[in-house]
Amino acid sequence: MIRVEKYGGSSVATIEKINLIASSIKTRVQMGYKIVVVTSAMGKTTNQLVEQAKQINPKISGRELDALLATGEEQAAAILTMALNNIGVDAISLNAYQAKIYASNEYQNGFIKSIDFKTIIKHLKDNKVIVLTGFQGIARDKSLVTLGRGGSDTTAVALAVGLKCPCYIYSDVDGVYTIDPRLYPSARHLKEVSYDEMIELASSGSEVFVTRAALLAKYYQVPTILLESMKEGGTNLVNELLEKREISGISVKSNLVYIKIIVSDLDERKLGIIFDLINKCGLLIGMVFYDKNSNLIAFTINKNDELKFDEIILDLKNNQELKSINVNKEYCYDKLTIVGHGINQYPGIISKIYTVLASEKIIIYQMTSNEMSISLLINKKDLSKTLELLVKTFELGR
Amino acid sequence: MIRVEKYGGSSVATIEKINLIASSIKTRVQMGYKIVVVTSAMGKTTNQLVEQAKQINPKISGRELDALLATGEEQAAAILTMALNNIGVDAISLNAYQAKIYASNEYQNGFIKSIDFKTIIKHLKDNKVIVLTGFQGIARDKSLVTLGRGGSDTTAVALAVGLKCPCYIYSDVDGVYTIDPRLYPSARHLKEVSYDEMIELASSGSEVFVTRAALLAKYYQVPTILLESMKEGGTNLVNELLEKREISGISVKSNLVYIKIIVSDLDERKLGIIFDLINKCGLLIGMVFYDKNSNLIAFTINKNDELKFDEIILDLKNNQELKSINVNKEYCYDKLTIVGHGINQYPGIISKIYTVLASEKIIIYQMTSNEMSISLLINKKDLSKTLELLVKTFELGR
Repeated sequence: MIRVEKYGGSSVATIEKINLIASSIKTRVQMGYKIVVVTSAMGKTTNQLVEQAKQINPKISGRELDALLATGEEQAAAILTMALNNIGVDAISLNAYQAKIYASNEYQNGFIKSIDFKTIIKHLKDNKVIVLTGFQGIARDKSLVTLGRGGSDTTAVALAVGLKCPCYIYSDVDGVYTIDPRLYPSARHLKEVSYDEMIELASSGSEVFVTRAALLAKYYQVPTILLESMKEGGTNLVNELLEKREISGISVKSNLVYIKIIVSDLDERKLGIIFDLINKCGLLIGMVFYDKNSNLIAFTINKNDELKFDEIILDLKNNQELKSINVNKEYCYDKLTIVGHGINQYPGIISKIYTVLASEKIIIYQMTSNEMSISLLINKKDLSKTLELLVKTFELGR
Repeated sequence: MIRVEKYGGSSVATIEKINLIASSIKTRVQMGYKIVVVTSAMGKTTNQLVEQAKQINPKISGRELDALLATGEEQAAAILTMALNNIGVDAISLNAYQAKIYASNEYQNGFIKSIDFKTIIKHLKDNKVIVLTGFQGIARDKSLVTLGRGGSDTTAVALAVGLKCPCYIYSDVDGVYTIDPRLYPSARHLKEVSYDEMIELASSGSEVFVTRAALLAKYYQVPTILLESMKEGGTNLVNELLEKREISGISVKSNLVYIKIIVSDLDERKLGIIFDLINKCGLLIGMVFYDKNSNLIAFTINKNDELKFDEIILDLKNNQELKSINVNKEYCYDKLTIVGHGINQYPGIISKIYTVLASEKIIIYQMTSNEMSISLLINKKDLSKTLELLVKTFELGR
């Protein structure tokens, strides 16, 4: 009985927490499990390392940043292994070189290309708990590459794919709720969500599991369980829900800036130039809307990407064809994404949303929709009221 | 013109210092040098990591401690490389996996077995500055192994051996003085010391360069220069001094505990048991003295090894043959080692020392001597007075 267990940064933030996790792993070892642990860096380590690097260069990126960031997981893996050894559990830490995790050479955003499982399987046969550094891989030229946001989740699922075993994702939340309980404390806990719901929730802002890992879990049908460290229960990812529900939950992305760009004679070529530049700068945009007749492009960016965005605008204005570009920024928006298999099968849902929000004079500034979700852009001040109304309407509370 | 440059922890303690070092490296790159930099961990990082590990287990040692400690140099190498890239110097960081530095699998105390220079030479040909993690190697099973005290010095000299180039050891002291200037500010700076003098000074307490690196430098005749970061000058290690001097300098080891062990019917077998245990526990002892007739063994230990020593005593007392063992500890001793090629060629030196110290009523508690040095154990309170007298007698001041 092999299992992969992944621990997030807040679960391993202190030596005390690490000791507790070690004890809980020990009980499962005694039950006969063979365990591959994937750990994130302790607490805010990764952020601290980024801050240090930014002292050298505020726009730092590339190979050396990854060489620096990868050390966070290496420290956590070594310390958790010490804690296991210390209570008599035979354990060994493996970094990406040792575990032979190969990645593409896209720094800060690598993807796992392959894992050579020989070393891992050898140690499992020797009844060792393996503590593996998440978030890192080795490029062909032996450079360290980090795997981007949620990289450790991805490492964990990729290991479970190869080991054909379940994947337990431990964090400080006991799985998926209809709404992030930090935003809406009486949200309902979900014992099961489908892979598709999870992908949709994750890509629209839920932080309990990351989209790419959910995609991987779905593709390889990895039994995945999201749960709170040291606790039972959690949320199982499943293929099909026994009982389909219209709405599975609501994700929230806060602190968005709503951008409107107006360019005279906006056409596909100009559009291409603009999005090409946005893409090259790695800016994440959402709720994209384009209307040819009104010469308008609209989208949201994260507030902390604003400086990056301003540079793009400067570049655009230097372009002869785009110098008449007009940019409008509006602040204090939150995006609310309502996710559910039923959304586009039951056309009544959109009208229900409009009706109930209109009745309380909540303004929807933009709306986009796809097969499984509807996103609304609302004013920050309306967030809690809106959540409350939607919870009541779609019975998402406890 | 290749050169190896090694920077100690205090030289890279802050981002400001790292930026300064990067600029100074840049000037040498512009002069046409090809540079391999070896860096220690930033400031007190290694100590902080050890403290963290000790929270898990105060007696922590072994594989996982090295997996943890090695991250300190990896961080420093990445950050220094960022600083170089940031001012337009093409640089790349290499860890032990990338630079292929292979070590014995003695954790916390590995020695370098071999370096595969292909990667290093390739990057030098591409005119890249290489920033290499000191203090670490890879064992045959791919585990990380740290190289023990002064490990980064050893990495640097080993690289210079393979690259057949000079080795510059940068620290916060501009080379070798007749006495550590922190202890005796008007000590005289030495522009040259012989490899043998350096080995003797280092093994008796001088911290500017480590014994094993000095041994390596001597064996392979590596031109080695010890100097202060950002400065010219320093001390050259040479084979033969043009002008031989009787005394080259004085090393000081502080905070020693003087141990006397009395065992009834002390013989070689009992002696064997005692030293075997001391050796197994990795306790470093000095000034060893054994007298069969008085059933006495005497030696010094470092004050911070006292707990380790007490455990050894407990073990000894559990031994049937040694249970009558009697241990006496005396505190507050400093050891002073007078180093020089001339010491045993000029028998007058020892009598000079005794005479001058006796004239000021300074008590010498023990004395040991070898081919190139004389060590004196004195009371801590007499240290500065003793240094002053010896400086005057042997003309070691400025």
